[in-house]
Amino acid sequence: MPRLNSYHLPPDQWPVDAAATCVLEGPEARHLLGVLRARPGDELRLFDGAGRHGLFRLLAAQGKARAELAVVSLDFEPAPTRGVTLALGWNKSARRDWLLEKAVELGALGLVFWQAARSQGEVPAGPKDSWRETCVQAAKQCGSAWLPELAVLQGGADALARIAADFDGCYVLYEKAGPEQLLEPRRLATGKSLVVLGPEGGLDEREASALLAAGFAPLSLGPRPLRWETAAVSCLALTHHALLQP
Amino acid sequence: MPRLNSYHLPPDQWPVDAAATCVLEGPEARHLLGVLRARPGDELRLFDGAGRHGLFRLLAAQGKARAELAVVSLDFEPAPTRGVTLALGWNKSARRDWLLEKAVELGALGLVFWQAARSQGEVPAGPKDSWRETCVQAAKQCGSAWLPELAVLQGGADALARIAADFDGCYVLYEKAGPEQLLEPRRLATGKSLVVLGPEGGLDEREASALLAAGFAPLSLGPRPLRWETAAVSCLALTHHALLQP
Repeated sequence: MPRLNSYHLPPDQWPVDAAATCVLEGPEARHLLGVLRARPGDELRLFDGAGRHGLFRLLAAQGKARAELAVVSLDFEPAPTRGVTLALGWNKSARRDWLLEKAVELGALGLVFWQAARSQGEVPAGPKDSWRETCVQAAKQCGSAWLPELAVLQGGADALARIAADFDGCYVLYEKAGPEQLLEPRRLATGKSLVVLGPEGGLDEREASALLAAGFAPLSLGPRPLRWETAAVSCLALTHHALLQP
Repeated sequence: MPRLNSYHLPPDQWPVDAAATCVLEGPEARHLLGVLRARPGDELRLFDGAGRHGLFRLLAAQGKARAELAVVSLDFEPAPTRGVTLALGWNKSARRDWLLEKAVELGALGLVFWQAARSQGEVPAGPKDSWRETCVQAAKQCGSAWLPELAVLQGGADALARIAADFDGCYVLYEKAGPEQLLEPRRLATGKSLVVLGPEGGLDEREASALLAAGFAPLSLGPRPLRWETAAVSCLALTHHALLQP
Protein backbone atom coordinates (compact mmCIF):
# COMPACT_ATOMS: atom_id res chain seq x y z
CA MET A 1 0.00 0.00 0.00
CA PRO A 2 1.49 3.37 -0.91
CA ARG A 3 2.03 5.68 2.01
CA LEU A 4 -0.65 8.35 2.51
CA ASN A 5 0.42 11.89 1.82
CA SER A 6 1.07 13.93 4.96
CA TYR A 7 0.08 17.54 5.52
CA HIS A 8 0.99 19.87 8.35
CA LEU A 9 -1.79 21.48 10.37
CA PRO A 10 -0.41 23.81 13.07
CA PRO A 11 -1.29 22.87 16.68
CA ASP A 12 -3.68 25.84 17.14
CA GLN A 13 -5.84 24.67 14.22
CA TRP A 14 -6.10 21.07 15.35
CA PRO A 15 -9.66 19.69 15.85
CA VAL A 16 -10.75 19.61 19.50
CA ASP A 17 -12.12 16.08 19.22
CA ALA A 18 -12.87 13.35 16.70
CA ALA A 19 -16.33 14.78 15.99
CA ALA A 20 -14.98 18.19 14.91
CA THR A 21 -13.93 19.22 11.44
CA CYS A 22 -10.89 21.27 10.53
CA VAL A 23 -9.63 23.37 7.65
CA LEU A 24 -6.39 23.06 5.73
CA GLU A 25 -5.36 26.26 3.96
CA GLY A 26 -2.51 27.89 2.06
CA PRO A 27 0.28 25.91 0.34
CA GLU A 28 -0.68 22.66 2.06
CA ALA A 29 -4.21 22.89 0.71
CA ARG A 30 -2.97 23.92 -2.73
CA HIS A 31 -0.77 20.84 -2.86
CA LEU A 32 -3.66 18.58 -1.83
CA LEU A 33 -6.24 20.11 -4.16
CA GLY A 34 -4.17 21.56 -7.00
CA VAL A 35 -1.27 19.12 -7.38
CA LEU A 36 -2.76 15.86 -6.14
CA ARG A 37 -6.30 16.80 -7.22
CA ALA A 38 -7.84 15.19 -4.16
CA ARG A 39 -11.62 14.70 -4.29
CA PRO A 40 -14.20 14.54 -1.53
CA GLY A 41 -13.90 11.18 0.21
CA ASP A 42 -10.11 10.91 -0.28
CA GLU A 43 -8.07 10.23 2.83
CA LEU A 44 -4.89 11.94 3.99
CA ARG A 45 -2.65 12.16 7.03
CA LEU A 46 -2.27 15.32 9.09
CA PHE A 47 0.32 16.03 11.78
CA ASP A 48 0.93 19.03 14.00
CA GLY A 49 4.65 18.55 14.66
CA ALA A 50 4.00 18.30 18.40
CA GLY A 51 2.94 14.65 18.55
CA ARG A 52 -0.59 14.77 17.20
CA HIS A 53 -1.33 13.04 13.94
CA GLY A 54 -4.28 11.33 12.40
CA LEU A 55 -6.20 10.13 9.41
CA PHE A 56 -8.62 12.61 7.83
CA ARG A 57 -11.12 12.60 4.98
CA LEU A 58 -11.70 15.44 2.54
CA LEU A 59 -15.26 16.74 2.96
CA ALA A 60 -15.23 19.67 0.59
CA ALA A 61 -12.90 21.97 -1.30
CA GLN A 62 -13.45 25.71 -1.56
CA GLY A 63 -11.40 26.66 -4.58
CA LYS A 64 -7.83 25.34 -4.61
CA ALA A 65 -6.62 26.75 -1.29
CA ARG A 66 -9.12 25.63 1.35
CA ALA A 67 -9.99 22.06 2.24
CA GLU A 68 -12.54 21.08 4.86
CA LEU A 69 -11.65 17.82 6.55
CA ALA A 70 -13.33 15.32 8.87
CA VAL A 71 -11.48 13.17 11.38
CA VAL A 72 -11.23 9.46 10.60
CA SER A 73 -8.93 8.63 13.51
CA LEU A 74 -6.67 10.61 15.85
CA ASP A 75 -3.41 9.48 17.33
CA PHE A 76 -0.75 10.93 19.60
CA GLU A 77 2.91 10.13 19.90
CA PRO A 78 4.34 11.11 23.30
CA ALA A 79 7.21 13.59 23.33
CA PRO A 80 10.57 11.85 23.02
CA THR A 81 12.38 11.66 26.36
CA ARG A 82 15.78 10.79 24.92
CA GLY A 83 17.90 12.28 22.19
CA VAL A 84 20.17 15.12 21.24
CA THR A 85 19.79 18.85 20.97
CA LEU A 86 22.62 20.27 18.88
CA ALA A 87 23.93 23.73 19.69
CA LEU A 88 25.55 24.84 16.45
CA GLY A 89 27.88 27.79 16.17
CA TRP A 90 26.23 30.27 13.81
CA ASN A 91 27.48 30.25 10.24
CA LYS A 92 26.40 31.82 7.01
CA SER A 93 26.21 28.28 5.76
CA ALA A 94 24.54 27.21 2.56
CA ARG A 95 24.16 23.88 4.30
CA ARG A 96 21.88 25.01 7.10
CA ASP A 97 18.74 23.88 5.26
CA TRP A 98 20.27 20.54 4.58
CA LEU A 99 21.11 20.15 8.26
CA LEU A 100 17.60 21.13 9.34
CA GLU A 101 16.25 18.39 7.09
CA LYS A 102 18.66 15.78 8.48
CA ALA A 103 17.81 16.85 12.05
CA VAL A 104 14.17 15.95 11.42
CA GLU A 105 14.94 12.65 9.71
CA LEU A 106 17.38 11.57 12.42
CA GLY A 107 15.13 12.65 15.28
CA ALA A 108 17.04 15.55 16.84
CA LEU A 109 15.16 17.01 19.82
CA GLY A 110 16.27 20.50 18.97
CA LEU A 111 18.69 22.81 17.22
CA VAL A 112 20.09 25.90 18.89
CA PHE A 113 22.05 28.33 16.74
CA TRP A 114 24.43 30.21 19.01
CA GLN A 115 26.60 33.26 18.49
CA ALA A 116 30.23 32.14 18.70
CA ALA A 117 33.43 34.16 18.60
CA ARG A 118 34.25 32.83 15.13
CA SER A 119 30.69 33.01 13.80
CA GLN A 120 30.35 34.66 10.41
CA GLY A 121 27.62 37.26 10.78
CA GLU A 122 25.07 37.72 13.52
CA VAL A 123 22.59 35.09 14.60
CA PRO A 124 19.10 36.43 13.78
CA ALA A 125 16.75 37.65 16.52
CA GLY A 126 14.72 34.44 16.39
CA PRO A 127 14.31 31.21 14.42
CA LYS A 128 13.23 32.01 10.86
CA ASP A 129 9.92 30.83 9.42
CA SER A 130 11.84 29.28 6.53
CA TRP A 131 13.71 27.00 8.97
CA ARG A 132 10.43 25.74 10.39
CA GLU A 133 9.08 25.23 6.88
CA THR A 134 12.14 23.15 5.92
CA CYS A 135 11.53 21.00 9.02
CA VAL A 136 7.84 20.59 8.13
CA GLN A 137 8.69 19.42 4.62
CA ALA A 138 11.21 16.92 6.00
CA ALA A 139 8.69 15.60 8.53
CA LYS A 140 6.14 15.08 5.78
CA GLN A 141 8.65 12.98 3.93
CA CYS A 142 9.82 10.80 6.83
CA GLY A 143 6.57 10.64 8.80
CA SER A 144 7.91 12.12 12.03
CA ALA A 145 5.16 13.36 14.36
CA TRP A 146 7.55 15.72 16.16
CA LEU A 147 9.49 18.67 14.85
CA PRO A 148 12.77 19.64 16.52
CA GLU A 149 12.60 22.70 18.74
CA LEU A 150 14.42 25.59 17.04
CA ALA A 151 16.12 28.35 18.99
CA VAL A 152 18.77 31.04 18.66
CA LEU A 153 21.09 32.11 21.41
CA GLN A 154 23.04 35.32 21.85
CA GLY A 155 25.63 35.58 24.58
CA GLY A 156 28.16 32.94 23.58
CA ALA A 157 29.42 30.17 25.80
CA ASP A 158 28.03 31.81 28.95
CA ALA A 159 24.53 31.62 27.50
CA LEU A 160 25.06 27.95 26.65
CA ALA A 161 26.13 27.29 30.24
CA ARG A 162 22.88 28.88 31.45
CA ILE A 163 20.70 26.43 29.47
CA ALA A 164 22.70 23.39 30.63
CA ALA A 165 20.28 22.72 33.51
CA ASP A 166 17.57 21.82 30.97
CA PHE A 167 19.53 18.71 29.93
CA ASP A 168 20.55 15.40 31.48
CA GLY A 169 24.02 15.64 29.98
CA CYS A 170 26.04 18.40 28.31
CA TYR A 171 28.88 17.84 25.87
CA VAL A 172 31.15 19.84 23.64
CA LEU A 173 32.79 18.56 20.46
CA TYR A 174 36.33 19.69 21.02
CA GLU A 175 39.24 19.23 18.67
CA LYS A 176 41.62 18.76 21.59
CA ALA A 177 39.55 15.91 23.05
CA GLY A 178 41.60 12.71 23.06
CA PRO A 179 40.81 9.22 21.79
CA GLU A 180 39.57 8.26 25.27
CA GLN A 181 36.88 10.91 24.84
CA LEU A 182 35.46 9.39 21.67
CA LEU A 183 31.74 10.08 21.51
CA GLU A 184 29.77 7.19 23.06
CA PRO A 185 26.41 7.03 21.29
CA ARG A 186 24.71 5.11 24.10
CA ARG A 187 25.69 7.77 26.57
CA LEU A 188 24.15 10.52 24.45
CA ALA A 189 21.02 8.40 24.12
CA THR A 190 20.39 7.86 27.83
CA GLY A 191 18.42 11.07 28.34
CA LYS A 192 18.25 14.55 26.89
CA SER A 193 21.72 15.57 25.77
CA LEU A 194 23.03 18.92 24.65
CA VAL A 195 25.97 18.74 22.24
CA VAL A 196 27.78 21.98 21.41
CA LEU A 197 29.61 22.43 18.12
CA GLY A 198 31.62 25.48 17.19
CA PRO A 199 31.02 27.34 13.94
CA GLU A 200 33.18 26.65 10.89
CA GLY A 201 36.64 27.53 12.16
CA GLY A 202 35.91 25.98 15.55
CA LEU A 203 35.59 27.18 19.10
CA ASP A 204 38.05 29.72 20.35
CA GLU A 205 40.04 28.91 23.47
CA ARG A 206 37.96 31.11 25.77
CA GLU A 207 34.74 29.44 24.66
CA ALA A 208 36.16 25.95 25.09
CA SER A 209 37.47 26.82 28.58
CA ALA A 210 34.16 28.35 29.63
CA LEU A 211 32.20 25.28 28.51
CA LEU A 212 34.60 22.83 30.15
CA ALA A 213 34.51 24.88 33.35
CA ALA A 214 30.70 24.76 33.24
CA GLY A 215 30.86 20.96 33.23
CA PHE A 216 30.38 20.21 29.53
CA ALA A 217 32.20 16.93 28.81
CA PRO A 218 34.64 17.05 25.89
CA LEU A 219 33.82 14.75 22.97
CA SER A 220 35.88 13.60 20.00
CA LEU A 221 34.70 12.28 16.64
CA GLY A 222 38.20 11.09 15.83
CA PRO A 223 41.46 12.64 14.68
CA ARG A 224 40.27 13.72 11.24
CA PRO A 225 38.93 17.28 11.01
CA LEU A 226 35.31 17.08 9.89
CA ARG A 227 33.32 19.89 8.37
CA TRP A 228 30.72 21.64 10.48
CA GLU A 229 27.75 19.83 8.96
CA THR A 230 29.55 16.47 8.80
CA ALA A 231 30.28 16.57 12.52
CA ALA A 232 26.68 17.60 13.21
CA VAL A 233 25.09 14.89 11.12
CA SER A 234 27.51 12.27 12.49
CA CYS A 235 26.34 13.11 16.03
CA LEU A 236 22.74 12.78 14.93
CA ALA A 237 23.26 9.52 13.01
CA LEU A 238 25.15 7.92 15.92
CA THR A 239 22.48 8.95 18.43
CA HIS A 240 19.62 7.89 16.14
CA HIS A 241 21.21 4.48 15.85
CA ALA A 242 21.84 4.20 19.60
CA LEU A 243 18.19 5.04 20.32
CA LEU A 244 17.15 2.00 18.25
CA GLN A 245 19.20 -0.42 20.31
CA PRO A 246 17.15 -2.77 22.46
CA MET B 1 50.45 26.16 14.10
CA PRO B 2 48.06 26.58 11.17
CA ARG B 3 47.71 23.51 8.99
CA LEU B 4 49.73 23.55 5.77
CA ASN B 5 47.75 23.86 2.59
CA SER B 6 47.38 20.58 0.71
CA TYR B 7 47.62 20.12 -3.06
CA HIS B 8 46.86 17.08 -5.15
CA LEU B 9 49.57 15.68 -7.41
CA PRO B 10 48.35 12.67 -9.42
CA PRO B 11 50.22 9.39 -8.78
CA ASP B 12 51.88 9.38 -12.23
CA GLN B 13 53.55 12.75 -11.55
CA TRP B 14 54.88 11.83 -8.13
CA PRO B 15 58.68 12.20 -7.63
CA VAL B 16 60.53 8.89 -7.88
CA ASP B 17 62.57 9.61 -4.78
CA ALA B 18 63.36 12.32 -2.25
CA ALA B 19 66.15 13.74 -4.44
CA ALA B 20 63.83 14.36 -7.41
CA THR B 21 61.82 17.47 -8.10
CA CYS B 22 58.27 17.58 -9.36
CA VAL B 23 55.93 20.04 -11.05
CA LEU B 24 52.50 21.19 -9.95
CA GLU B 25 50.39 22.56 -12.81
CA GLY B 26 46.89 23.72 -13.66
CA PRO B 27 44.31 24.82 -11.07
CA GLU B 28 46.37 23.48 -8.15
CA ALA B 29 49.37 25.59 -9.19
CA ARG B 30 47.15 28.62 -9.83
CA HIS B 31 45.77 28.36 -6.31
CA LEU B 32 49.25 28.09 -4.83
CA LEU B 33 50.79 30.89 -6.87
CA GLY B 34 47.87 33.14 -7.74
CA VAL B 35 45.61 32.92 -4.68
CA LEU B 36 48.05 32.16 -1.88
CA ARG B 37 50.93 34.01 -3.60
CA ALA B 38 53.47 31.43 -2.45
CA ARG B 39 57.11 32.43 -2.85
CA PRO B 40 60.23 30.32 -3.37
CA GLY B 41 61.12 28.68 -0.06
CA ASP B 42 57.50 28.33 1.10
CA GLU B 43 56.41 24.85 2.18
CA LEU B 44 53.27 22.94 1.25
CA ARG B 45 51.79 19.47 1.50
CA LEU B 46 51.17 17.26 -1.52
CA PHE B 47 49.18 14.02 -1.65
CA ASP B 48 48.41 11.63 -4.48
CA GLY B 49 45.14 10.17 -3.15
CA ALA B 50 46.67 6.69 -3.12
CA GLY B 51 48.55 6.89 0.18
CA ARG B 52 51.56 9.00 -0.75
CA HIS B 53 51.92 12.40 0.82
CA GLY B 54 54.74 14.64 1.82
CA LEU B 55 56.16 18.02 2.60
CA PHE B 56 57.52 20.02 -0.34
CA ARG B 57 59.24 23.37 -0.89
CA LEU B 58 58.58 25.77 -3.72
CA LEU B 59 61.73 26.11 -5.84
CA ALA B 60 60.48 28.31 -8.63
CA ALA B 61 57.32 29.54 -10.29
CA GLN B 62 56.91 29.78 -14.05
CA GLY B 63 54.06 32.23 -14.45
CA LYS B 64 51.01 31.50 -12.32
CA ALA B 65 50.29 27.94 -13.46
CA ARG B 66 53.50 25.98 -13.02
CA ALA B 67 55.35 25.43 -9.77
CA GLU B 68 58.58 23.49 -9.44
CA LEU B 69 58.87 21.76 -6.11
CA ALA B 70 61.58 19.97 -4.11
CA VAL B 71 60.90 17.20 -1.64
CA VAL B 72 61.36 18.03 2.04
CA SER B 73 60.03 14.70 3.33
CA LEU B 74 57.97 11.85 1.90
CA ASP B 75 55.48 9.71 3.73
CA PHE B 76 53.14 6.84 2.91
CA GLU B 77 49.92 5.76 4.54
CA PRO B 78 49.14 2.09 3.86
CA ALA B 79 45.86 1.32 2.11
CA PRO B 80 42.99 0.91 4.58
CA THR B 81 42.11 -2.75 5.12
CA ARG B 82 38.76 -2.08 6.79
CA GLY B 83 35.80 0.06 5.86
CA VAL B 84 32.79 0.36 3.64
CA THR B 85 32.23 0.58 -0.08
CA LEU B 86 28.75 1.93 -0.77
CA ALA B 87 26.90 0.73 -3.85
CA LEU B 88 24.37 3.47 -4.48
CA GLY B 89 21.42 3.10 -6.83
CA TRP B 90 21.89 5.69 -9.56
CA ASN B 91 19.87 8.89 -9.17
CA LYS B 92 19.80 12.22 -10.89
CA SER B 93 20.50 13.60 -7.46
CA ALA B 94 21.58 17.11 -6.75
CA ARG B 95 23.11 15.61 -3.63
CA ARG B 96 25.66 13.39 -5.30
CA ASP B 97 28.45 15.93 -4.89
CA TRP B 98 27.63 16.35 -1.29
CA LEU B 99 27.75 12.59 -0.78
CA LEU B 100 31.11 12.31 -2.55
CA GLU B 101 32.49 14.90 -0.16
CA LYS B 102 31.13 13.09 2.91
CA ALA B 103 32.50 9.78 1.59
CA VAL B 104 36.01 11.25 1.65
CA GLU B 105 35.64 12.86 5.07
CA LEU B 106 34.21 9.70 6.63
CA GLY B 107 36.76 7.39 5.00
CA ALA B 108 34.64 5.35 2.58
CA LEU B 109 36.77 2.83 0.68
CA GLY B 110 34.72 3.27 -2.45
CA LEU B 111 31.50 4.36 -4.10
CA VAL B 112 29.86 2.29 -6.82
CA PHE B 113 26.96 3.86 -8.70
CA TRP B 114 24.79 1.04 -10.03
CA GLN B 115 21.92 0.95 -12.47
CA ALA B 116 18.80 -0.05 -10.55
CA ALA B 117 15.28 -0.75 -11.79
CA ARG B 118 14.00 2.48 -10.23
CA SER B 119 17.04 4.59 -11.20
CA GLN B 120 16.21 7.90 -12.82
CA GLY B 121 18.27 8.08 -15.98
CA GLU B 122 21.22 5.98 -17.06
CA VAL B 123 24.41 5.57 -15.10
CA PRO B 124 27.22 7.13 -17.20
CA ALA B 125 29.80 4.96 -18.96
CA GLY B 126 32.42 5.65 -16.31
CA PRO B 127 33.08 7.79 -13.24
CA LYS B 128 33.11 11.46 -14.19
CA ASP B 129 36.17 13.66 -13.76
CA SER B 130 34.04 16.07 -11.75
CA TRP B 131 33.35 13.36 -9.15
CA ARG B 132 37.07 12.77 -8.72
CA GLU B 133 37.65 16.51 -8.46
CA THR B 134 35.02 16.81 -5.71
CA CYS B 135 36.81 14.02 -3.83
CA VAL B 136 40.17 15.73 -4.26
CA GLN B 137 38.83 18.99 -2.86
CA ALA B 138 37.34 17.16 0.13
CA ALA B 139 40.61 15.32 0.77
CA LYS B 140 42.51 18.60 0.75
CA GLN B 141 40.18 19.90 3.40
CA CYS B 142 40.24 16.88 5.75
CA GLY B 143 43.80 15.71 5.10
CA SER B 144 42.94 12.21 3.90
CA ALA B 145 45.79 10.52 2.02
CA TRP B 146 43.41 8.13 0.25
CA LEU B 147 40.60 8.89 -2.16
CA PRO B 148 37.67 6.48 -2.38
CA GLU B 149 37.63 4.26 -5.44
CA LEU B 150 34.87 5.40 -7.79
CA ALA B 151 33.08 3.02 -10.14
CA VAL B 152 29.88 2.65 -12.13
CA LEU B 153 28.06 -0.61 -12.69
CA GLN B 154 25.59 -1.58 -15.35
CA GLY B 155 23.70 -4.85 -15.06
CA GLY B 156 21.66 -4.32 -11.91
CA ALA B 157 21.63 -6.70 -8.96
CA ASP B 158 23.30 -9.52 -10.92
CA ALA B 159 26.31 -7.30 -11.54
CA LEU B 160 26.46 -6.46 -7.82
CA ALA B 161 26.42 -10.17 -7.00
CA ARG B 162 29.41 -10.66 -9.32
CA ILE B 163 31.58 -8.15 -7.40
CA ALA B 164 30.64 -9.64 -4.01
CA ALA B 165 33.73 -11.87 -3.97
CA ASP B 166 35.93 -8.73 -3.68
CA PHE B 167 34.56 -8.06 -0.17
CA ASP B 168 34.70 -9.70 3.25
CA GLY B 169 31.01 -9.05 3.84
CA CYS B 170 28.09 -7.96 1.66
CA TYR B 171 24.97 -6.23 2.90
CA VAL B 172 21.85 -4.64 1.53
CA LEU B 173 19.87 -1.88 3.20
CA TYR B 174 16.39 -3.26 2.91
CA GLU B 175 13.19 -1.60 4.09
CA LYS B 176 11.72 -4.99 5.04
CA ALA B 177 14.68 -5.84 7.29
CA GLY B 178 13.47 -6.22 10.88
CA PRO B 179 14.74 -4.68 14.12
CA GLU B 180 16.92 -7.76 14.69
CA GLN B 181 18.76 -6.81 11.50
CA LEU B 182 19.70 -3.34 12.74
CA LEU B 183 23.03 -2.37 11.22
CA GLU B 184 25.93 -3.33 13.53
CA PRO B 185 28.73 -0.83 12.95
CA ARG B 186 31.41 -3.10 14.37
CA ARG B 187 30.44 -5.84 11.95
CA LEU B 188 30.80 -3.51 8.98
CA ALA B 189 34.17 -2.41 10.32
CA THR B 190 35.72 -5.88 10.63
CA GLY B 191 36.97 -6.02 7.04
CA LYS B 192 36.03 -4.68 3.65
CA SER B 193 32.26 -4.43 3.48
CA LEU B 194 29.99 -3.75 0.53
CA VAL B 195 26.70 -2.05 1.43
CA VAL B 196 24.05 -1.78 -1.28
CA LEU B 197 21.46 0.99 -1.24
CA GLY B 198 18.64 1.34 -3.72
CA PRO B 199 18.05 4.56 -5.62
CA GLU B 200 15.45 7.07 -4.38
CA GLY B 201 12.27 5.01 -4.47
CA GLY B 202 14.10 1.95 -3.19
CA LEU B 203 14.94 -1.48 -4.51
CA ASP B 204 12.31 -3.34 -6.44
CA GLU B 205 11.32 -6.81 -5.26
CA ARG B 206 13.32 -8.66 -7.91
CA GLU B 207 16.50 -6.78 -7.01
CA ALA B 208 16.03 -7.41 -3.30
CA SER B 209 15.40 -11.12 -3.90
CA ALA B 210 18.44 -11.45 -6.17
CA LEU B 211 20.74 -9.81 -3.62
CA LEU B 212 19.40 -11.85 -0.70
CA ALA B 213 19.74 -15.03 -2.79
CA ALA B 214 23.35 -14.04 -3.55
CA GLY B 215 24.07 -13.95 0.19
CA PHE B 216 23.85 -10.20 0.88
CA ALA B 217 22.71 -9.81 4.50
CA PRO B 218 19.71 -7.52 4.99
CA LEU B 219 20.35 -4.42 7.10
CA SER B 220 17.99 -1.98 8.76
CA LEU B 221 18.63 1.61 9.83
CA GLY B 222 15.39 1.66 11.81
CA PRO B 223 11.69 1.98 11.08
CA ARG B 224 11.79 5.56 9.82
CA PRO B 225 12.20 5.96 6.05
CA LEU B 226 15.41 7.90 5.44
CA ARG B 227 16.29 9.72 2.26
CA TRP B 228 18.83 8.21 -0.08
CA GLU B 229 21.70 10.41 1.04
CA THR B 230 20.74 10.29 4.73
CA ALA B 231 20.88 6.49 4.72
CA ALA B 232 24.20 6.60 2.88
CA VAL B 233 25.85 9.10 5.20
CA SER B 234 24.48 7.30 8.28
CA CYS B 235 26.20 4.10 7.13
CA LEU B 236 29.43 6.00 6.64
CA ALA B 237 29.24 7.85 9.97
CA LEU B 238 28.49 4.65 11.90
CA THR B 239 31.36 2.78 10.23
CA HIS B 240 33.76 5.71 10.63
CA HIS B 241 32.98 5.75 14.35
CA ALA B 242 33.32 1.96 14.68
CA LEU B 243 36.74 2.05 13.00
CA LEU B 244 37.94 4.41 15.76
CA GLN B 245 37.03 2.02 18.56
CA PRO B 246 40.01 0.47 20.31
